[in-house]
Amino acid sequence: MGFYPGNIALYQTAFRHKSAASETSHGSKNSNERMEYLGDAIFGSVIAHYLFKKFPYKDEGFLTKMRSKIACREFMNKLAVKMGINQFVIYQGDKNSRFKSINGDAFEALIGAIYLDKGYDFAEKFILERIINLHVDMEEVETTETDFKSKLINYIQKEKKSMQFDIEEEQIKGHQKQYKVSLIIDDELVGKGLDVSKKRAEQQAAHKACEFFNIL
Amino acid sequence: MGFYPGNIALYQTAFRHKSAASETSHGSKNSNERMEYLGDAIFGSVIAHYLFKKFPYKDEGFLTKMRSKIACREFMNKLAVKMGINQFVIYQGDKNSRFKSINGDAFEALIGAIYLDKGYDFAEKFILERIINLHVDMEEVETTETDFKSKLINYIQKEKKSMQFDIEEEQIKGHQKQYKVSLIIDDELVGKGLDVSKKRAEQQAAHKACEFFNIL
Repeated sequence: MGFYPGNIALYQTAFRHKSAASETSHGSKNSNERMEYLGDAIFGSVIAHYLFKKFPYKDEGFLTKMRSKIACREFMNKLAVKMGINQFVIYQGDKNSRFKSINGDAFEALIGAIYLDKGYDFAEKFILERIINLHVDMEEVETTETDFKSKLINYIQKEKKSMQFDIEEEQIKGHQKQYKVSLIIDDELVGKGLDVSKKRAEQQAAHKACEFFNIL
Repeated sequence: MGFYPGNIALYQTAFRHKSAASETSHGSKNSNERMEYLGDAIFGSVIAHYLFKKFPYKDEGFLTKMRSKIACREFMNKLAVKMGINQFVIYQGDKNSRFKSINGDAFEALIGAIYLDKGYDFAEKFILERIINLHVDMEEVETTETDFKSKLINYIQKEKKSMQFDIEEEQIKGHQKQYKVSLIIDDELVGKGLDVSKKRAEQQAAHKACEFFNIL
């Protein structure tokens, strides 16, 4: 990763999934979850500033959307594998079936560890030079819409399940109509969505279903 | 605020609400919205680290909850007024009726301006010394639960409206029951909630109703 760690214990904790954690003498766990919480925040603010500078004439709606695409769980998991972080993760049990975000979580925790070890400016430089410049194609991020419905349909076809979107129109206070979507897969309600746009309500429901089936 | 600004233009932008913005030569607006987006991220990461250090044996669930209480819109608005930031905000129109979060937004934008002007470490020091130490009682934050239902009931009584919670039990995949709450005020559906806890589902619905009536 281009640098020597100062406090190695921080990095050891960053790679320890909760399944492999033990209890400390204070009754807390030595897993990477606290560090992941911290790394998530640091990563978020570095990306926020990066986008702020890169797109000086775009409004905050655009910036927020771009950031949420880069900071999303799926993107994190991919980045973690691309960078080889998955090789260092310590866990117990079957990684693939149970812990879908184990690599992305470790990736965030690593950011937290670097920040604690080396400070904000170093962490920022690491994120920009080693992650964004090497692994993120900003134009691709800009043009990619996360399409949960397509993702779900692929899965449904592969698994030979049945799928049905139930859509209700609803009049909410005032004039605007809302769409209430219930997504039923194999006779079970697995996701719901509510939005003034039918398409967005469906995407919400599909997103929940993707989470449910662990296919994000 | 205890320091001299470097680039005064940044602070002027931070206090300019979109209602008083004009178009720049690039077609973008000179309002504080982009800076608010940035300040929100910086504030979030500073608070994340502060809580991480202050509560070394608490888990990430606790830390996340504490952070969301401190970084919430309502808390920001109060802080902004406590610090006198509301006196500097430039806007057009009736502040009280239309722009409930105008002060909190300017407060976040100010953090963004300080960060851009002076860097991360300075912004962090400002947040800790001038905001957290002076204006935030961490024990109070820890013990206060944001109770949207009580807040809403007060409002309903004052405004002499009628209120009704409709609760449905639902069986979602597997064994766990979920509660689906519809909150009806004066015959209109104004909020919904869905959770395995009935209390939390009600709070969700009440939260949405509070947003709807602008009483956060």
